[in-house]
Amino acid sequence: MDLRVIEWLPTGGVRLLDQTRLPAEEVYLEVGTVDEMATAIQELKVRGAPLIGIAAVMGLAAAAQGEAERGTLTREWVEAAAARLAAVRPTAVNLSWALDRARRVADELFGSGADGSAVAAALTQEAQGIWDEDAAMCRAIGVAGAGLIPPGATVLTHCNAGMLATGGIGTALAAVYVALEQGKQVRVVACEARPLRQGARLTTWELARSGVPVRAIVDSAAASIMAQGGIDLVLTGADRIAANGDVANKIGTYGLAVLARAHAIPFYVAAPRSTFDPSLASGDLIPIEQRPAAELAAASGAQVLNPAFDVTPAEWVTAIVTDRGVLEPPYGAAIERLFE
Amino acid sequence: MDLRVIEWLPTGGVRLLDQTRLPAEEVYLEVGTVDEMATAIQELKVRGAPLIGIAAVMGLAAAAQGEAERGTLTREWVEAAAARLAAVRPTAVNLSWALDRARRVADELFGSGADGSAVAAALTQEAQGIWDEDAAMCRAIGVAGAGLIPPGATVLTHCNAGMLATGGIGTALAAVYVALEQGKQVRVVACEARPLRQGARLTTWELARSGVPVRAIVDSAAASIMAQGGIDLVLTGADRIAANGDVANKIGTYGLAVLARAHAIPFYVAAPRSTFDPSLASGDLIPIEQRPAAELAAASGAQVLNPAFDVTPAEWVTAIVTDRGVLEPPYGAAIERLFE
Repeated sequence: MDLRVIEWLPTGGVRLLDQTRLPAEEVYLEVGTVDEMATAIQELKVRGAPLIGIAAVMGLAAAAQGEAERGTLTREWVEAAAARLAAVRPTAVNLSWALDRARRVADELFGSGADGSAVAAALTQEAQGIWDEDAAMCRAIGVAGAGLIPPGATVLTHCNAGMLATGGIGTALAAVYVALEQGKQVRVVACEARPLRQGARLTTWELARSGVPVRAIVDSAAASIMAQGGIDLVLTGADRIAANGDVANKIGTYGLAVLARAHAIPFYVAAPRSTFDPSLASGDLIPIEQRPAAELAAASGAQVLNPAFDVTPAEWVTAIVTDRGVLEPPYGAAIERLFE
Repeated sequence: MDLRVIEWLPTGGVRLLDQTRLPAEEVYLEVGTVDEMATAIQELKVRGAPLIGIAAVMGLAAAAQGEAERGTLTREWVEAAAARLAAVRPTAVNLSWALDRARRVADELFGSGADGSAVAAALTQEAQGIWDEDAAMCRAIGVAGAGLIPPGATVLTHCNAGMLATGGIGTALAAVYVALEQGKQVRVVACEARPLRQGARLTTWELARSGVPVRAIVDSAAASIMAQGGIDLVLTGADRIAANGDVANKIGTYGLAVLARAHAIPFYVAAPRSTFDPSLASGDLIPIEQRPAAELAAASGAQVLNPAFDVTPAEWVTAIVTDRGVLEPPYGAAIERLFE
């Protein structure tokens, strides 16, 4: 599939597929400043844990290029820009992980007396490197995950953990794409993923465009379809995974894990190493982003609770698919080895 | 609360609160013909298992009045009108139950040689009787159900099983209203109930208007709120209950039952006797209405599965609250006694 979710503009700046306009329209937007990229991430025009890390550093690098041309690129500018971008969405760790990489590169060069244009060039190279690594990790996740998908399987997935969420073929959906490449018949059931409907809007769009059979359901239909024997495995992405294997992901993921076990269906999570946060002992330390009440359009006079993510405790996760292979419980030691 | 969900028009016909316009606008529509009422039920302008039974027979009676005035009211007209109305929504048994009552009344009078105006008057009386009985059953359900709600409890409910779904104070929400009358502090968490959002739109509107503290959540947030200890009991309505206690209700109800058990939370269903269908041995015989694919707004090229209801097997139900008290498992014998 010829799908350019993100790319460099030859004139400087970054071009993004505006995901808020899907599936109705394929519209692109051009981003040249840190503020523009922060807004694009805030408004979910670009989303998906790995992709927002890539986009943030690409935006940082493109803006740094402009600063360097004006002779105003400083260590303080990079620090402030990275802090601004990292604060936009708190739950996914990939964002701060990627921005930390960029800051370290700039810091080291400024420390050795490099000029602005050398720092900007290095930031651009680092952004490209993060993107390339992510694409390679997606492929590796796909190969590892495809081994968990039996021929003829129906895979339930939640939200979007595909090409629209990464710099490559996705995380959860990478396993589906590779299984299809291997000649397996695979079908996908996509949960809608309220409130922003990224499953119904994005996963169905991406899979249909790639020729993968996909059916959309409301989130709350998952249980009855499982009871009817319609699901062989559940496979989702992740926004952050703690040192003990607890998984933060789109609201509803935890419920799917509980429902999967009640129906004797395996529940898998797929994520690159950049999604793990070994600094957090467990999932209750992961900050959970709250979205605006207006997204629920309830009656005035009613309160709204609108968490964007939930935490699935590690004991509900059958296995975690990474770019370094499939981790099985207990996860603590396996996750430690990922970072050796 | 001065809320007139349905009422007779003094000039003939029936006035309905158009529930599709809530919570933004309180708009009423006037219905005078069988086709108009069938359309109003089809389009969910009036909904809720008990209420559509009442509305259908009121619409039938109002239209029969017009036929009688024109001298064209026949047994065949009543049969055709009842069949037309009963076919509109297949899952809730209250609709066909109420229409069967009306048909039997007409049948008996026609059999004894009564004229059209006598039959129409009897149909009007029967409709009023069904309505009055429903209001009384709601109150009785409320009294029985309030006993299951501890002081200070937070009740999770799904879709709308309140004043907007019945001819009285509701089924599930009746228990909340009566508990509040008894001076208990009770709070409600309302699941959105995709795809038509009757929880976020209607339950929040009804409760906020009645001064009951209510918070709306997306359906898939129920699991994490349960895990955080935020829910004391789950209480839903029902569209049909089979002879063994299997419960058909709004899609997502079954998942809530599974999640409730995983978190050691009781799962209760509230329904009047008119919602039971002792002719069906088990829930897999209940017809499940499929809604239009367009309600999910997925990408073109994707399929959509959009069942409006699911079936919760009796073994997941902690107790069933009826107008004749609280039924506990095993339900078969208890349900049989309801109809003695």
